[in-house]
Amino acid sequence: MVERITLYSAKICPWAHRTELALKESGLDYKRFEIDLENKPEWYAPKVNPASKVPALAYGGPDTEPDSPSPDSVKLAESYVLIEFIADLVSSTKPLLPSSPVDRAKARFFVEAFTSKFTGVWFGIVQRGDDPAGILPAIDTLQDLLPAEGYAVGEWSIADAAVTPFLGRASAVLKNDLGAYDQGKGAKLWETLQNDEKYERFRKYFADVTKRESFKETFFEDVIVEGYKKRFAPLRAQRSAAAS
Amino acid sequence: MVERITLYSAKICPWAHRTELALKESGLDYKRFEIDLENKPEWYAPKVNPASKVPALAYGGPDTEPDSPSPDSVKLAESYVLIEFIADLVSSTKPLLPSSPVDRAKARFFVEAFTSKFTGVWFGIVQRGDDPAGILPAIDTLQDLLPAEGYAVGEWSIADAAVTPFLGRASAVLKNDLGAYDQGKGAKLWETLQNDEKYERFRKYFADVTKRESFKETFFEDVIVEGYKKRFAPLRAQRSAAAS
Repeated sequence: MVERITLYSAKICPWAHRTELALKESGLDYKRFEIDLENKPEWYAPKVNPASKVPALAYGGPDTEPDSPSPDSVKLAESYVLIEFIADLVSSTKPLLPSSPVDRAKARFFVEAFTSKFTGVWFGIVQRGDDPAGILPAIDTLQDLLPAEGYAVGEWSIADAAVTPFLGRASAVLKNDLGAYDQGKGAKLWETLQNDEKYERFRKYFADVTKRESFKETFFEDVIVEGYKKRFAPLRAQRSAAAS
Repeated sequence: MVERITLYSAKICPWAHRTELALKESGLDYKRFEIDLENKPEWYAPKVNPASKVPALAYGGPDTEPDSPSPDSVKLAESYVLIEFIADLVSSTKPLLPSSPVDRAKARFFVEAFTSKFTGVWFGIVQRGDDPAGILPAIDTLQDLLPAEGYAVGEWSIADAAVTPFLGRASAVLKNDLGAYDQGKGAKLWETLQNDEKYERFRKYFADVTKRESFKETFFEDVIVEGYKKRFAPLRAQRSAAAS
């Protein structure tokens, strides 16, 4: 029997968003608590996640308010661990991974291959001002691994949950040209991704994953845009000043 | 039904060693092919793993020699993907992960927490000459997460397969004082780990995982020692020369 679930999340965080997508798709009930990453509640590290990061889950235990977590619930963390956990919870009722070992391996490889290429360069782009075109190898990998149509490995799975939050943020951030990189380069790259025939498979996949209810209910574009503006716009100004 | 398995491995590589431990413990039959990492066969990247890394598996297809892999076998890569794959193959006959979702999550968290702390510093130690004491946070994490006795999560599991190769290499390398760091510091750290009462739980775990047949059959200490000597001894000499 599945026990009580509380998710500690943050709208801006792609890692937390993975977990939220998997939970929505699982159909399980859960409480959600927003952690302000710039002003974390004092109780969060000692009572929920010693690493003080999101996402984290409290599982089981008595019905408490999220800001008074019980020592009797199990606390779990790390986004990839959590989406596998959610898939395990519903494996017999609502499969979020294929049943064939080969397809499960392909799903996990898809996550690893995309994530290592995307996250390795993304913060260099928005934070240090590296060329946004640095994310194209991640998009190429995605296209190479995707089947001719549909999701990563057949039905929607946690492989899709793992990559979609990064694609959503790339969309919001590039089309609004946010980040430390040279003005105009983000919007231009997004236009290429929208129009170049080379990226047709990416566009179809992006449309497929972002039209799902689970995405619409968990993607807060305005919060992401405001967060990136606040955090990264000053960095572009600093770079321009340093260069002149 | 489980199909034919060929493992592409390298005795020196901890990532490949993870897969080999899981395969040994699974009881599955497999062929093993050693890839010389300094002189990779030409066919390896195009026919087995485009990333040209070990470990990789060929699964299914006709019975060919490992150096003539068939296009009809599925090629899989990434050590963590492979150990989950092996656990999936034998889930009903020889469980290599617990059945409870919470314990499975704990197993995966154990891997993630140790690996990110260990591998993040290890190559800085042996290659750039950072202080070997930099691995102590990984050992502390291991001790914090281990239960009072036994393996990571009850029975031996792929969580143990994932960390043991790094512990084996730390042992071989530190006690032989190999690496770019200041002479004597590795051997001294290993002595601390052998004698300080603070590391009693680590010592017991190390003894438990390394006494298994699967480890004895897959750990080639002499190859590792020779490989590290060849690769890293010149770096220590260079550092000494640069400092004087």
